[in-house]
Amino acid sequence: MKPRAVRVFAPATISNLGPGFDVIGIAVHTPGDEVLAKRQTATGLTFSVETLQPDVPRNAESNVAARVASLMLEEFKPSFGIRMVLHKLMPIGSGLGSSAASSVAAAAAVNALLPTPLKKIDLLPFALEGERIASGAPHADNVAPCLLGGACLIRSYDPLDVVPIPVEGSIVWTIVHPHIAIRTQEARRILPTTVPLSTAVHQWGNIGGLTLGLATGNARLVGTCTEDVIVEPVRAKLIPGFHEVKNSALRAGAMGCSISGSGPSMFAIASSTASARSVGAEMARTFSHIANLTSDVYVSRVNRRGVRILKTKQE
Amino acid sequence: MKPRAVRVFAPATISNLGPGFDVIGIAVHTPGDEVLAKRQTATGLTFSVETLQPDVPRNAESNVAARVASLMLEEFKPSFGIRMVLHKLMPIGSGLGSSAASSVAAAAAVNALLPTPLKKIDLLPFALEGERIASGAPHADNVAPCLLGGACLIRSYDPLDVVPIPVEGSIVWTIVHPHIAIRTQEARRILPTTVPLSTAVHQWGNIGGLTLGLATGNARLVGTCTEDVIVEPVRAKLIPGFHEVKNSALRAGAMGCSISGSGPSMFAIASSTASARSVGAEMARTFSHIANLTSDVYVSRVNRRGVRILKTKQE
Repeated sequence: MKPRAVRVFAPATISNLGPGFDVIGIAVHTPGDEVLAKRQTATGLTFSVETLQPDVPRNAESNVAARVASLMLEEFKPSFGIRMVLHKLMPIGSGLGSSAASSVAAAAAVNALLPTPLKKIDLLPFALEGERIASGAPHADNVAPCLLGGACLIRSYDPLDVVPIPVEGSIVWTIVHPHIAIRTQEARRILPTTVPLSTAVHQWGNIGGLTLGLATGNARLVGTCTEDVIVEPVRAKLIPGFHEVKNSALRAGAMGCSISGSGPSMFAIASSTASARSVGAEMARTFSHIANLTSDVYVSRVNRRGVRILKTKQE
Repeated sequence: MKPRAVRVFAPATISNLGPGFDVIGIAVHTPGDEVLAKRQTATGLTFSVETLQPDVPRNAESNVAARVASLMLEEFKPSFGIRMVLHKLMPIGSGLGSSAASSVAAAAAVNALLPTPLKKIDLLPFALEGERIASGAPHADNVAPCLLGGACLIRSYDPLDVVPIPVEGSIVWTIVHPHIAIRTQEARRILPTTVPLSTAVHQWGNIGGLTLGLATGNARLVGTCTEDVIVEPVRAKLIPGFHEVKNSALRAGAMGCSISGSGPSMFAIASSTASARSVGAEMARTFSHIANLTSDVYVSRVNRRGVRILKTKQE
């Protein structure tokens, strides 16, 4: 029996994790995007979007989910077509891997309907191509953990080499999303093109420690190594109240705090759910107090599963 | 009963491990330096050196072991003095942490004679100060693994933060020391002061992978991540035949190969002792063939113990 229709969930991700700009990302449990895909008799893609956000591209040419689905249909040429609905639940420009979630959800949904589905890892090139279209640069540190779950190290982009970091579950992540949008391309434009060697050395000490802390479930080490001396100082300027919010997180017991993706969302590290919740409340309060911004707060352990099929209808 | 005399062994170290310039080092089992220390009635230090190497500083003002011993005597002011003999077995300017081994051996020897010895980790500042005198820069990625054993990540130099990386024993290290000397200060002078951000990102992918590979005993990952796109390309020029030797190591089955410390020694990674031996033989043959250099070859797993007391005489 082949599935006739599927509903897929793809989770948010924290990329550019601390010092790991472009190389380390993790998946969380919430928020995320959903895609509904059904076989249709006519070949090709019929695409629509359900969302409350006015800025989400509606047409198949400019929406990442549709682009990914079309790429897969062109590649595998099934005898049927697909009718796809993207339930765009995640805010765009949030720093939470919103476009990666749409790309991955679309790839997994089309894949589930194919006569011979690929392995998850083999969906990576399709989802990355969607990301490239959306942002001009393929953010594998969003796409890979969204697809595969857990924490992923992008060891190399050329050739692409994704190394899963085994993650112990003792670390709890707080994400606070203040209600402003930052364009990834703008956040990338302001980065320096060169860095002092001594600063790079400082950064790679933290990258080693962050990797080790994730693999050993050491929340304190992960927190300490979340220090980012290269990208955070530049991008902090794009987030109103960044320093006050970060300080409020640390005062409330967070072991580390930095920018998620290219912002404006910020993440913090705690060793218990209770602590992560009070850290999140304090950060949201500070965003409101200092910058007059409302926020959403999410508390989650690492999502080890990544994209998943919520529901299947058989033929 | 207090020890009256001790003989201490401090091992060689591979610092600047692959991409981990200034931040990752490991201890091996051989070669190493030895220090003999005895209590003497007169306070202060009586110092001598036994070595076949003409370039080793003989006097207490310029020898790192004597400097470290003097620092400790000044700090702890025991009621006795110390007569110390440094058996300088390691070649200087080899890239194997020779000065770190002398510093650490001296610190551990004096410590063993003190009425209330310190913990190993508390000897780090004394041994580092010796390194600072010897090379102008304290190489904690040599000193820390030499002292503590295993693999060490220097997460931060200011403040100094040493993170032990738990090491699985399945990786075997080949070291080949060709018989030329490179001055650390010269090798440091030729480094770039800035690096492109994109190159730094490539380097930190490898640093994350190297750390993970060490912690999980994954020889293939460690080998792949030994790639160093910043320091190796510059320092390779100081080692005659570097590229040919590296290629010969890889052809002989090494999973990775790079410069140990600031050279001229090179290290390679294998997953068995037999493989590591044939890699070493091939590297030495290439040094001889291409650059007319004789070499010493060492094959070792990680030394998890670090500096150790070989022998104690009680009062």
